[in-house]
Amino acid sequence: MKILGIDPGTTRIGYGLIEKNGGARLIDCGFIDGGKVPRDKRLTLLERELIKLIKHFNPDLVSLEKLFFTKNKLTAMSVSEARGVIVLTIQKLGIPFSEFTPSDIKATVAGNGRANKEEVRRAVCYTLRVQSIPGPDDVSDALAVALRGSFENPSRYA
Amino acid sequence: MKILGIDPGTTRIGYGLIEKNGGARLIDCGFIDGGKVPRDKRLTLLERELIKLIKHFNPDLVSLEKLFFTKNKLTAMSVSEARGVIVLTIQKLGIPFSEFTPSDIKATVAGNGRANKEEVRRAVCYTLRVQSIPGPDDVSDALAVALRGSFENPSRYA
Repeated sequence: MKILGIDPGTTRIGYGLIEKNGGARLIDCGFIDGGKVPRDKRLTLLERELIKLIKHFNPDLVSLEKLFFTKNKLTAMSVSEARGVIVLTIQKLGIPFSEFTPSDIKATVAGNGRANKEEVRRAVCYTLRVQSIPGPDDVSDALAVALRGSFENPSRYA
Repeated sequence: MKILGIDPGTTRIGYGLIEKNGGARLIDCGFIDGGKVPRDKRLTLLERELIKLIKHFNPDLVSLEKLFFTKNKLTAMSVSEARGVIVLTIQKLGIPFSEFTPSDIKATVAGNGRANKEEVRRAVCYTLRVQSIPGPDDVSDALAVALRGSFENPSRYA
């Protein structure tokens, strides 16, 4: 079973693909870089790149991080706009998906709902048996979301 | 010049189409009713209905209300998800669009940035020379957004 984890941000959208077959194996990871285009092109870039990723990897499940509600209102609104595009795209492609809160993801993957970025990264490396995860925290976070999605009792978007 | 105003909400998305040619004239108005489908179908319904509206009316400009940041976080995130889908759809169809804050819209249309729903409705009726606007406040609000877009110095989404 292939699971694509997505960590939505204001400019960077991290993604991580794992294969679960008993243990979990890292297949690919990276991020969609919305920072390289002006804001008014960001949502169309996101849709286009996400469609490419999903068509290329053909995941059985998409696992998505629910918005952690930051104190910065503009950030929260911008991330939510990106989430709207992600949810629409996944649904139109007909891929099942689940959503998880940050604390649920951290508790399940790193054993602590308040784990910091570095602890999440180390837990992801340990679980996937890799030395390191390339790129910014958005990438290791996305792999944590994928790992959370690989466990039982996923919550559904509804 | 035809202007489509959109007022995004959690379940209802109000729309109002006006023609500006010297004075402004009401062409059509109504709302997309996301409440009639489960939440996980709402964004795809919104995209589908918005594409229908734009293809049917072929507006020269779409005018969109910027999110008024409510105290209810879930509402704000849900409206932002809808806004993401609206912005994506408008951009993919290649229609120019502008965004305005609620206080800007109210100040321009009703002469008071803190006008209530009823005052906005009356100002819209007066400006468009109609007796009444059918439907919920989302509809008269959307017509106010369209009227704001018909004035000069539109702010751009960027």
